[in-house]
Amino acid sequence: MAEQVAEEIQEQRPDNQSGLLVNQNDYLEVGVHIATKVKSAGMKRFIYKVREDGLYLLDLKTIDTKIKVAANMIAMYDPKDVVVTASRIYAIVAAEKFANIIGAKFIKGRVTPGIFTNPHRDDYMEAKLIMISDSRNEKQAIKEASMKNIPIIALSDTDNSTKFVDLIIPSNNRGRKSLAFIYYLLAREVLKARSEIKTSEEFKFKTEDFESKSEPKSNMKQEQQY
Amino acid sequence: MAEQVAEEIQEQRPDNQSGLLVNQNDYLEVGVHIATKVKSAGMKRFIYKVREDGLYLLDLKTIDTKIKVAANMIAMYDPKDVVVTASRIYAIVAAEKFANIIGAKFIKGRVTPGIFTNPHRDDYMEAKLIMISDSRNEKQAIKEASMKNIPIIALSDTDNSTKFVDLIIPSNNRGRKSLAFIYYLLAREVLKARSEIKTSEEFKFKTEDFESKSEPKSNMKQEQQY
Repeated sequence: MAEQVAEEIQEQRPDNQSGLLVNQNDYLEVGVHIATKVKSAGMKRFIYKVREDGLYLLDLKTIDTKIKVAANMIAMYDPKDVVVTASRIYAIVAAEKFANIIGAKFIKGRVTPGIFTNPHRDDYMEAKLIMISDSRNEKQAIKEASMKNIPIIALSDTDNSTKFVDLIIPSNNRGRKSLAFIYYLLAREVLKARSEIKTSEEFKFKTEDFESKSEPKSNMKQEQQY
Repeated sequence: MAEQVAEEIQEQRPDNQSGLLVNQNDYLEVGVHIATKVKSAGMKRFIYKVREDGLYLLDLKTIDTKIKVAANMIAMYDPKDVVVTASRIYAIVAAEKFANIIGAKFIKGRVTPGIFTNPHRDDYMEAKLIMISDSRNEKQAIKEASMKNIPIIALSDTDNSTKFVDLIIPSNNRGRKSLAFIYYLLAREVLKARSEIKTSEEFKFKTEDFESKSEPKSNMKQEQQY
């Protein structure tokens, strides 16, 4: 069947009145937009272009907007109903700091089957919103959440599956500095959306507070400088 | 560059403990899964197959799950912070009924520029969550919402743009019975998620209450029996 032209909304997102959350260079320096050489079907729409070395680059404005939207959504939930997950060291340090600051629960590594679905378990959590650092590493958390129809927010790199994700934050979710920066911004914006702080300047943490000091054991993309 | 195989999560969504919201035949009868002959990039992943006449069919289980997830999310918001929009007659009747039942605000037809962004306007609304019936018809609402980084839930047919949508409910969003059924289920599930009713049986409305009695003026897909 011939492909027809689908509805198109104006290509560029309308200018946000408040602009980006931070200076564009701050994003570029930590490489939030530098993705992988692989693209999944669900992530195509967030790709801005391919770099000469074959790495896909993500659209910066969309990253920025999705961080704001996610923060606005998270802020509406009772913190105790929000569960944040992470599995690899760079993500763990950043995501745990984020969870602590906003008062959410944090799960490190693999979740056990039944954690969201079986109230008879000792480790049972009654989650209403899940924040995933990497769908590849946290398949079980996604599975458990989708069994309970819990909305799923996920940091998603170009090679991630988006099949069960509701709100996608396209991003480099493997790099140390990128992860630290994203979770730093998310924490700051959640506190602002809750009116716990009025301005970004009142946020007392630094991106370094979200950065792992250890070296990863594997030689995954994590070892990039970002 | 050669396309590589991206991460794949197990193809089938894990069995939901509670099964579908309704009997599968109830969904099929009203044609919630019968889409258009056009597919947008963002909607490909929700397509189950192509029917012989060229119409795309949407995956039923995903429709069902996304209705539940959306209802769970909407239920977490203060009803006065939720705005529902619709433009065409079948959608208007269904969406307005839904908004009334859950206590949300409703906007019929085009929204005026500034409605979510300009507090000096008479018609200003402070929205925290937007529910869109059709992104094609409600471009302005989407534009306004994204300027304010408000999370957007949208019923999306295969020809809809998903560019600014956060939570997609794949669905036939043109058919009279399909729209009535989806908004009926959304209303019921929101009340259940809020514990305003305990069971589906306690929901006192019928799908007919969500159905337009008028004929549409145009001869769009609306005139199908669904």
